[in-house]
Amino acid sequence: MSLLVVGSVAFDSVKTPFGEVEDVLGGSATFFSTSASYFTDVRLVAAVGEDFPERHVNFLKMREIDVTGLERAKGKTFRWKGQYGYALNEAETLDTQLNVFESFRPDIPDQYKDSDVVFLANIDPDLQRDVLRQVDKPRLVAADTMNFWIEGKRESLMETLKLVDILLINDGEARQLTGEHNLVKAARAIFSMGPSTLVIKRGEYGVLLFHGDAVFAAPAYPLEDVFDPTGAGDTFAGGFMGYITSIMDFKESVVRRATVMGSVMASFNVEDFSLNRIRDLDYKEIEGRYREFKTLAHFDDI
Amino acid sequence: MSLLVVGSVAFDSVKTPFGEVEDVLGGSATFFSTSASYFTDVRLVAAVGEDFPERHVNFLKMREIDVTGLERAKGKTFRWKGQYGYALNEAETLDTQLNVFESFRPDIPDQYKDSDVVFLANIDPDLQRDVLRQVDKPRLVAADTMNFWIEGKRESLMETLKLVDILLINDGEARQLTGEHNLVKAARAIFSMGPSTLVIKRGEYGVLLFHGDAVFAAPAYPLEDVFDPTGAGDTFAGGFMGYITSIMDFKESVVRRATVMGSVMASFNVEDFSLNRIRDLDYKEIEGRYREFKTLAHFDDI
Repeated sequence: MSLLVVGSVAFDSVKTPFGEVEDVLGGSATFFSTSASYFTDVRLVAAVGEDFPERHVNFLKMREIDVTGLERAKGKTFRWKGQYGYALNEAETLDTQLNVFESFRPDIPDQYKDSDVVFLANIDPDLQRDVLRQVDKPRLVAADTMNFWIEGKRESLMETLKLVDILLINDGEARQLTGEHNLVKAARAIFSMGPSTLVIKRGEYGVLLFHGDAVFAAPAYPLEDVFDPTGAGDTFAGGFMGYITSIMDFKESVVRRATVMGSVMASFNVEDFSLNRIRDLDYKEIEGRYREFKTLAHFDDI
Repeated sequence: MSLLVVGSVAFDSVKTPFGEVEDVLGGSATFFSTSASYFTDVRLVAAVGEDFPERHVNFLKMREIDVTGLERAKGKTFRWKGQYGYALNEAETLDTQLNVFESFRPDIPDQYKDSDVVFLANIDPDLQRDVLRQVDKPRLVAADTMNFWIEGKRESLMETLKLVDILLINDGEARQLTGEHNLVKAARAIFSMGPSTLVIKRGEYGVLLFHGDAVFAAPAYPLEDVFDPTGAGDTFAGGFMGYITSIMDFKESVVRRATVMGSVMASFNVEDFSLNRIRDLDYKEIEGRYREFKTLAHFDDI
């Protein structure tokens, strides 16, 4: 089974209370595909500039990610600069240089068109639909979005949501999208827009999954050393979608396990800058952390 | 087995986006003892004024709470007035009239002195130690506190913490008490102050339990209608301590179940103003909600 992701590949400069890095590998499609590569075949579509070093491409290849769709465009690679305080729950963006990402028009290679599952990372909702027009008939479509599109391109986003099975957003975005503060009500409103599954990411508080009538609360792992939350949401999405694609079943028990698998991958990712911690995990480490989540959430019947 | 609680009995005036009530029954000891009364024998110590109606005392008696220690003092009952916005996560205090609570000196009745378990609700840490001097030898001591004492009476609070087995506080208080933003580090710091169990209440995000080396994350139930969060923390503590006292075992599996039981009781409490929702629950309702928590948190092994 194959999983197509369309999003960004970027250089991140990040400052946290624990350190600082400059122009390290980042971007939604990078975190997503690296995380998903532990579970399934991943096909990547993104654009980078002429300044993008071959070693990063080789890293993606090493993870057996198909980079046929990684377009090298004239100009510089998308750059993001941000910093976090001790709370680590929200980045303050210091600088954004869209560069080649500004004129990015996803061009889906022929050999990607039969992808079983599509993940539309956080890009312009017009482009998200453009991707869906180019693929044959995926069995599952998932998408992320953000406040920028909810505010600025609401109508287009609504058109995209009609085509989306799974929406992955954070709690603030769910509230903004629906005008409902209560997340149960927000979930119902989002279901009426198209998706039948909603994943609400709540950072250090874990994830709330709405899947049909079922609700599942996955905790976040209380880590002693959270180093850098950049990419945690995309890493979650990669583990979540990668696990679902590997099973290619969409029943509730699978989606619950996938939610924990996404949380497992995100818990690794925040332990170091960039993709350092998830570059080369042993599958045994992933299984071990999954069991720790199991222990973390376990309680007996009364 | 018997559970002694020392705290406040009060009149609350509360405004939420969903309604408004005036001078309704409230106070930490009231929420705590009502919640705990579903699980064990409760003995209450608090002070009320001459304006406190007999029907409230009769309600507590109806719940089989021992009110021998409910002192009726000259003056008026403690009054608190607050309001909540749509986020419902933090009350804005509009008015506090301590009244008889200002000169409250807990006087533990002789027949209470053999209590097995003691819960020191959020009162002056000097008074918390004063209570412990008056009881024989409880098998378990639990306490709550707040930012007011952490800032203003730190040394006294530290003396109290040496005598406390279980500390129940919210995440902001844990951070303020220890100067550690990371809750794993905060838990370790609190363990070095005395307690061997730490319950961190996180409102709509549930509860994080540190018990020796074990960590347990209990979700909060995603309710569609949260009406009034007043008393949720004390109602949690009542369910938690009441359940532990009923089993009188302090092993990890019991404390995990107690954490969920506290969350169950709190989830009922927020569904209506004052104690309206937890005045007269059917035990079957409690068991049913516990099973819903079980479903909410369940996922299979991979």
